[in-house]
This record gives sequence, C-alpha cells and structure tokens, in this order.
Amino acid sequence: MNLIAKAALITMAVSGMAQAATWQPLPETAPAPANNPTTKAKTELGKILFFDPRFSSTGTVSCNSCHNLMEGGDDSRAVSMGVHGKTGNRNAPTVWNAAFHSVQFWDGRANTLEDQAKGPVTNPIEMGMKDLESAMARVRQIPGYKDLFTKAFGSDKPMTIDNAAKAVAAFERTLITPNSAYDRYVKGDKKAMSKQQIRGMNTFAKTGCTACHSGPAFNGPKMPLGQGFYAKFPTFTDNAYVSKYKLLEDKGRMEATGKSADKHQFRVPTLRNITDTAPYFHNGSVKDLDEAVRVMAKTQLNKNLSKQEVDDIVAFLGALSGEYPQLTLPRLPATPGTTILAD
Amino acid sequence: MNLIAKAALITMAVSGMAQAATWQPLPETAPAPANNPTTKAKTELGKILFFDPRFSSTGTVSCNSCHNLMEGGDDSRAVSMGVHGKTGNRNAPTVWNAAFHSVQFWDGRANTLEDQAKGPVTNPIEMGMKDLESAMARVRQIPGYKDLFTKAFGSDKPMTIDNAAKAVAAFERTLITPNSAYDRYVKGDKKAMSKQQIRGMNTFAKTGCTACHSGPAFNGPKMPLGQGFYAKFPTFTDNAYVSKYKLLEDKGRMEATGKSADKHQFRVPTLRNITDTAPYFHNGSVKDLDEAVRVMAKTQLNKNLSKQEVDDIVAFLGALSGEYPQLTLPRLPATPGTTILAD
Repeated sequence: MNLIAKAALITMAVSGMAQAATWQPLPETAPAPANNPTTKAKTELGKILFFDPRFSSTGTVSCNSCHNLMEGGDDSRAVSMGVHGKTGNRNAPTVWNAAFHSVQFWDGRANTLEDQAKGPVTNPIEMGMKDLESAMARVRQIPGYKDLFTKAFGSDKPMTIDNAAKAVAAFERTLITPNSAYDRYVKGDKKAMSKQQIRGMNTFAKTGCTACHSGPAFNGPKMPLGQGFYAKFPTFTDNAYVSKYKLLEDKGRMEATGKSADKHQFRVPTLRNITDTAPYFHNGSVKDLDEAVRVMAKTQLNKNLSKQEVDDIVAFLGALSGEYPQLTLPRLPATPGTTILAD
Repeated sequence: MNLIAKAALITMAVSGMAQAATWQPLPETAPAPANNPTTKAKTELGKILFFDPRFSSTGTVSCNSCHNLMEGGDDSRAVSMGVHGKTGNRNAPTVWNAAFHSVQFWDGRANTLEDQAKGPVTNPIEMGMKDLESAMARVRQIPGYKDLFTKAFGSDKPMTIDNAAKAVAAFERTLITPNSAYDRYVKGDKKAMSKQQIRGMNTFAKTGCTACHSGPAFNGPKMPLGQGFYAKFPTFTDNAYVSKYKLLEDKGRMEATGKSADKHQFRVPTLRNITDTAPYFHNGSVKDLDEAVRVMAKTQLNKNLSKQEVDDIVAFLGALSGEYPQLTLPRLPATPGTTILAD
C-alpha cells in the first residue's frame, strides 16, 4: 500500500469518526431516476418478472433464486448457483435496500438498478440466456405479459428489454426495510437498542468502521448515481486472514475496468440486515459475522479488536435488521396448453 | 395387450360413459388422515418448509422449485432439474389438488402426502441430502423453527422428520383450486362454460376419457387412501406416438414394485388446471395439450379424433382451471450472523 492511499484512509477514518454524530435512519422510499418514475403498474410487472424463472435457459433460475426475498435478499451460499449447477466467484449481494447503492455489483460495473437487472440474464453461470433478445422473445411468448407491459409502459411497443429492466428496477426500489432498532433509536426512542448495542455503536464509530460504512444504509456517503463509493479490500495485507480467506484472488473493480488503479477496489456494501446475509465478503469466504468483523478491523484498519469489542459490534449490527415488507406471492402468467421451455 | 386387459378396458370405458351424468365439482377442502388433522399452526410451518431451499444439499432447491405455486404447481419443464443441475426421467406432477390423489408419485410409491414429502429430500437428483436426519439437523440449526414446530406439534421433541412431513402435507391439503368454469357449470350456472366447452365435455365423455379421468379431480373414482387408481400407458402400442414420445421406456409402477403386472402402469393424474401444467405425460415428452389429447385417445382408446373433437376437448379442459388461492410470501427463519450451508 502506498503512502498516499494510507494518508487518504486516515483522513477518511477521521471524517468517519466525525460522522459518528450524524447517524441517519433509513428512508422509507427510494429516489427513482427521472426516466423511470416508480408506478404501481411497473412495480407489479417488475415483481412478476423478478420471480419468473422462465427467463433462464433451464427455466429454473429467477432473480429471486439468488436474491431470495423470503430471507435476507441473498441465498445463504458463499457463491451463487446458476443454471446447470454452475457457480461463480462472487457472493450474491442483498437486493433489500439495493436502491440506496449509487452503483451496482461488487465491482460497480452497473450504474443503475436498470442496468444491473440485465446482467444476470445472459451471464452463462447465472441465468444463461444466449442474449437479451432471446429472453424478451420468451417474455413475448407468454400472453399475459402483454397487458402488464402495456399498463406499465403504454401501448407503443412496450415489450422491450429496457422496459423489462425498468420494471424490475422499479420493483426493487420498493424493497426497503425500515424501522430497525437502530432507526427507532436514532429517531429518538432511546430504549430501542440494548446497552450492548449502544456500546457497539460507539465501538463501531471509534474503531473507524464509519470511515466507509456511513450514511443511512451504512454503505458510504451519498454519491451521484453511477459514481460508486469504493474501498480497497484488503488494505492491510500483512496478516493471516488474507491467505486464509483468499482475499487477494479477486481483483475487484479492476476485473470490470482493466485499470490497475481499481485493483482490489470493491463497492462498499450496505450493512443493513447484515445478520441475515451470511456468509460474508465478495467471495463469501467468511461464514460468521463475528469473524467478518475481526477480519474487517484487521485488513481495513489494522486493528485487533478484543472479544468484547467484536461482540458489541455484532450486537450493534443486529440492530440494523429492519422490517421486511409482507409480499404476496405473484402469479406468473401462463402459456395455456404449452410450455416455452425447450426440452 | 392381452384380451382380458382389453375387455377390462372396454368395461371401464362403458362405466366411464355411464358416469358422464355424474360430473362432480371440486371440494373446497380436502380430507385429512386421522393422525394428521389440518391445523393453522401446521399449515403455516408446512408452508415455510415448502419454500425453504436450505434442506437441499446445495441450498438451491425447495419443494417450490419443482412444484411452483406461482404457476401450475410444477415447473414447465419436461423433467425437473435438481441439485447441481441434475435431471431425472419423470415430469413433476402438480401439487395443486394433490390432496385428492389416493396415492402419490407417478408410480404410486407413496401412499400419502406425508410419505411423499420425504421422497425428494434424499433423492440424489432432486434435493440431494445424504439422509433425512441430515435434513432435520439443518432444520434444528435454524433457531426460528423450534417455535414453529412447538406450536404445531407440542413441546415434546417436536422437531422430527415425521412432523416436518406432516406439516408439509397439511399445507399441501390447503392447495385447492375451486370455482373453475366447470365447477360453476355443474353447480348450475349454465353460462359458466362456452358452447365449445360444453361440446368438448360431451366429446370427452363420449370418447371414453372418463373411463379413467372421472371424479371431482378427473383422476378416477374415489379410492381408499393408499390404494391407487392406475392405468396402463400406453395400452394400444401399434401407433407412431409410442416411439415418437418414447412411451415404452419407463416401466411405470413396475419400477417401484418390481412386479411385471405393474409394467407401464401409471397413476391416473388429475386434469385440474391442465392448461397450466405443460409439458405432458410422465416423461414430459409432449409439449402441447392438443397433441396430448390426440396421443391419449390413440394410445388409451385406439381412437383417432378429428381436429374439431380435439379442439373441443382442449376447450373443455380449459374449463378445469380453478381459482388459485392468493398466498403471502413466507419469511424463512434466519440463522443470525451465520449460514448453515457448507461452502
């Protein structure tokens, strides 16, 4: 690590501590881009598309397969399993509160939820469609989708991949989990968090975690859409965790940009509902949250935390679990008397 | 085919026609066995278990993966895809109205829904768990399940595989789709079915389909639980369909019993919601419902239907689509700060 980077880190850590006084609750609504205002017709279509596995080559993988809304918005696995049992090398980020990220994917390779939604469809180890047009050809073969697209986007050729992505993104902007113990605490209910959680909150700030994990979603300061907030992980490499958890294998954002300046840079993930999204890190290599806290403190801040400090921070992180909205199971439009899946 | 079997078939066909006058609507509740009365606590637990993928070896396959309640209770595929992308040789039967089958699986190898629920968990090409005890070990590792099992089964060691199966079966007994156009028609609303559907209903009976597809679920006469109603498929083999759709490859119930008398015997499936469960037959070899009707008429009754007859029967079968109950998405109990899935 060079000195400039270290100096920058220290500055960030200091400003992080200063931010300790500006704890912010999670907004209950997410901003939408000007070209895709959130409407009920869009979120309803987007929800159905999100759960429909027929846009994967095998017909077995939907968005919800890896971003399971019945749990923490991910899949409990180190790395996800796509079509034909294929696996990649990155852990599925939670879709809950993804609307509060200014870029998407671990490496920030999509600027918006709209762009992100198109990625997994054609990824050969995820949904495995040949191209986006093949996916849309399937959508068009399912009679019930026509009305849903028309309601959401009007009657002038509404069934496009861009509109499908807009609908999914609009739905995802509703996937917010407000009213955590932490949110109630910072809004004034001083009994909402336990003593240990309050102690952990202070330890979290004092240790310097807020240097990166700041803001209402604990994923950094507010950035313009498309401009990510990244951190080098690992920053400090002279420790046993780096090889134990294979932390230098993935080049991070450099895999997307090819630039050496982006080597090992990752988008700072949200800590909201973190107790529901094990295992941890971009490669899912750490199974337990207490170990994840130890690894972060050592690799990012070069600090060795005591057991008490770790336990307190973990307790505080538990206070970031919000209320999951109750969703109804969508009904996927039928293809009466036939199937669109090849044998 | 021997003469006795042919004679039996003719008798059945005749009695089937006689039954044409006894069209029956679908009951709105399903009977439960004496040792597993349906309770709200059980159906709630069973629903969560039904949707929880963590009881498959990879953590990717739940009951709902192949018996998708967002559509026809199956998966639109010829044969299902289990863990690691493995496939078998049978088409997933719909779970909707499965409570009205007196035996389960295409070959009737489970007498009850309770027995059936245990099958896929350890099937290496479905959920792939080493044994049922391994699956229960996972259930016990998830804190939230303890309360759910206690509420459903009392506090005396409730977390057993038998109770898990009972809960899933109790939930499945609620998966009923009443009020189809056909049901409303036979209850007296003579406008509920179109003219073509009424014509198709008569053609269906006249052709002899009701020899096997009788009763409220169109899966045969009421039988004691555990005693299946089977038919030999194909019965007439001197036609092109047999090789085209590989109808003699699967030995049917003989695969389960080893008895040659059971060769090519299959449980008669329900026709409820049949337009939502393509592709068709035990091997999913026929993609379209009109072709399935032609194949059935030829292989089971040695009849060649006209296009009009096929179209009318297909229209009638469309009248068997009932109302799917609206379900809420269950919340799967968490394992706070950790995962139970091995890497």
